[in-house]
Amino acid sequence: MIRVAIVGYGNLGRGVEKAIKKNSDMSLIGIFTRRKPETVSSEGSPVFPMAELMNKKEDIDVCILCGGSATDLPEQTPKLTQWFNTVDSFDTHAKIPEHFLAVDKIAKEHQKTSIISVGWDPGLFSLNRLIAKSILPQGETLTFWGKGVSQGHSDALRRVSGVADAVQYTIPNDEIIERLKAGEKLELTARDKHVRECFVVLEEGADQEKIKNEIIEMPNYFSDYDTTVHFISQKTLESEHKQGMPHGGKVLRVGETSEGMKQVYDFSLDLQSNPEFTASVIVAYARACVRLADEKVYGAQTVFDVAPKYLTQLSDDVLRKDYL
Amino acid sequence: MIRVAIVGYGNLGRGVEKAIKKNSDMSLIGIFTRRKPETVSSEGSPVFPMAELMNKKEDIDVCILCGGSATDLPEQTPKLTQWFNTVDSFDTHAKIPEHFLAVDKIAKEHQKTSIISVGWDPGLFSLNRLIAKSILPQGETLTFWGKGVSQGHSDALRRVSGVADAVQYTIPNDEIIERLKAGEKLELTARDKHVRECFVVLEEGADQEKIKNEIIEMPNYFSDYDTTVHFISQKTLESEHKQGMPHGGKVLRVGETSEGMKQVYDFSLDLQSNPEFTASVIVAYARACVRLADEKVYGAQTVFDVAPKYLTQLSDDVLRKDYL
Repeated sequence: MIRVAIVGYGNLGRGVEKAIKKNSDMSLIGIFTRRKPETVSSEGSPVFPMAELMNKKEDIDVCILCGGSATDLPEQTPKLTQWFNTVDSFDTHAKIPEHFLAVDKIAKEHQKTSIISVGWDPGLFSLNRLIAKSILPQGETLTFWGKGVSQGHSDALRRVSGVADAVQYTIPNDEIIERLKAGEKLELTARDKHVRECFVVLEEGADQEKIKNEIIEMPNYFSDYDTTVHFISQKTLESEHKQGMPHGGKVLRVGETSEGMKQVYDFSLDLQSNPEFTASVIVAYARACVRLADEKVYGAQTVFDVAPKYLTQLSDDVLRKDYL
Repeated sequence: MIRVAIVGYGNLGRGVEKAIKKNSDMSLIGIFTRRKPETVSSEGSPVFPMAELMNKKEDIDVCILCGGSATDLPEQTPKLTQWFNTVDSFDTHAKIPEHFLAVDKIAKEHQKTSIISVGWDPGLFSLNRLIAKSILPQGETLTFWGKGVSQGHSDALRRVSGVADAVQYTIPNDEIIERLKAGEKLELTARDKHVRECFVVLEEGADQEKIKNEIIEMPNYFSDYDTTVHFISQKTLESEHKQGMPHGGKVLRVGETSEGMKQVYDFSLDLQSNPEFTASVIVAYARACVRLADEKVYGAQTVFDVAPKYLTQLSDDVLRKDYL
């Protein structure tokens, strides 16, 4: 059995707890939190104060770090990698090289293995961007995100005077995707690739037309996009737009293998729960982390460094027989 | 530069010749054929008789074996792996374990690296079946093939008395795919997953209705499928259905990460040229083969054993900075 600790228990940690239950070769030693354990209601797994983590050192094969990328992981991943094999989902793209170097140094010094920036983007999408480009050197790769809720854009809506509550979905522009797949060469900015759909609850007496215009014309957020605004009740917002955390997206590469010979590579995810799926990816890579550590492959790794066979509990023989 | 030899020069070998031109770190030493070299017209690359291969041993980093799976590769891959790093596209699924063992033994004895069964299925599709299953342990994976020409079914049409020529397309059943993505649990046989479309040229005086019924009711090939038959002229068949070799398909996994929480993983290819795309995959893995040999990772490998970073000429630093 692979013995796992969850460090940090928000949406992602909760997803990891569920994912471990789906993997018969894994057991959860516990959830470690900075909050008071008695205030944390897990789904049946033991909850410990963070300080307890070191006492359970010998019982843990890998720590899955479920903190945030802004402040938690830059500190936690290097620190905990002194004592544990670790997996994190560090997703501040611009700071990944720096984070990698910090973790790699510690991991090599202490003979530990750490896989950083795991999830679907960064993660599976990164993998597909690399594979698609390697196979089709001539071509263009585009990443689309959604349909999913954008927290930043939802916040921008809620700051509009007269808006009581709101949710904003980022949606890939299907027309653009179809034209790309058909082989059209398009010069696209991020703004051409997505449309924005807003579900807005008004405060009593607010001016619907005025608010709609204010949203559609809001610079940076909406003015350059094809934006739709729907006015709905708070009840509908709660029941239809605040349940679950759907997301998804697509890595599309359209390449040519010879003059005019078009090849379309399309990797798509459609997720009812973003944190649960991210957690499921992380748990598969936690298995890889432990197996790599067993093989003394120490240091920081990313999804690019991990051979796919390490993700599964199936033997190499079974893989060749049933999966190839 | 990675110095490559192409062994065997049919559609696949021709695709490899084109793919090498798209990869700036590769040079083609030559095409090696059992035919008389003067009868082979390459796209500008030197053509040598097979016997010349051994004389060029010191000039070659990897041989890409482009023979057939039925008789060529079971003999050629083990034999040539005595002297060369090799990549093949052995695709007789049932015999892969046996082929792997034969090649692995030779490769280890002679300190060579061989990546077998590379392409898109087996190959990229295998990779996605494995990754999808590892991430979503609870769920179901289905592979769909097409739209593409099935040689066996086209042959069956041509054997019908009164048929002058014909082409048959296997087409994934889109309705089934949409129902699966929507989360329906379906018990499917191979036959539910695809529909068949036939383009038939009649001999003069042939009875169209009779032939149509004979096709639709043909056991094994058509009777259990939703089959459409179009009668067209030889000229249309030549111009619209015998140019290029389109193919493609889809690996679809619909899984649940918790009760009722559906996650859809979809990897799709839409290829205007099946052999050119297969060749492009093989060329990327030929790069991996040489890099693994440089790291003394000897023996037979499959796509499951190869970390994605080996497929590209980009450095690990660039990958982390720009692709993660």
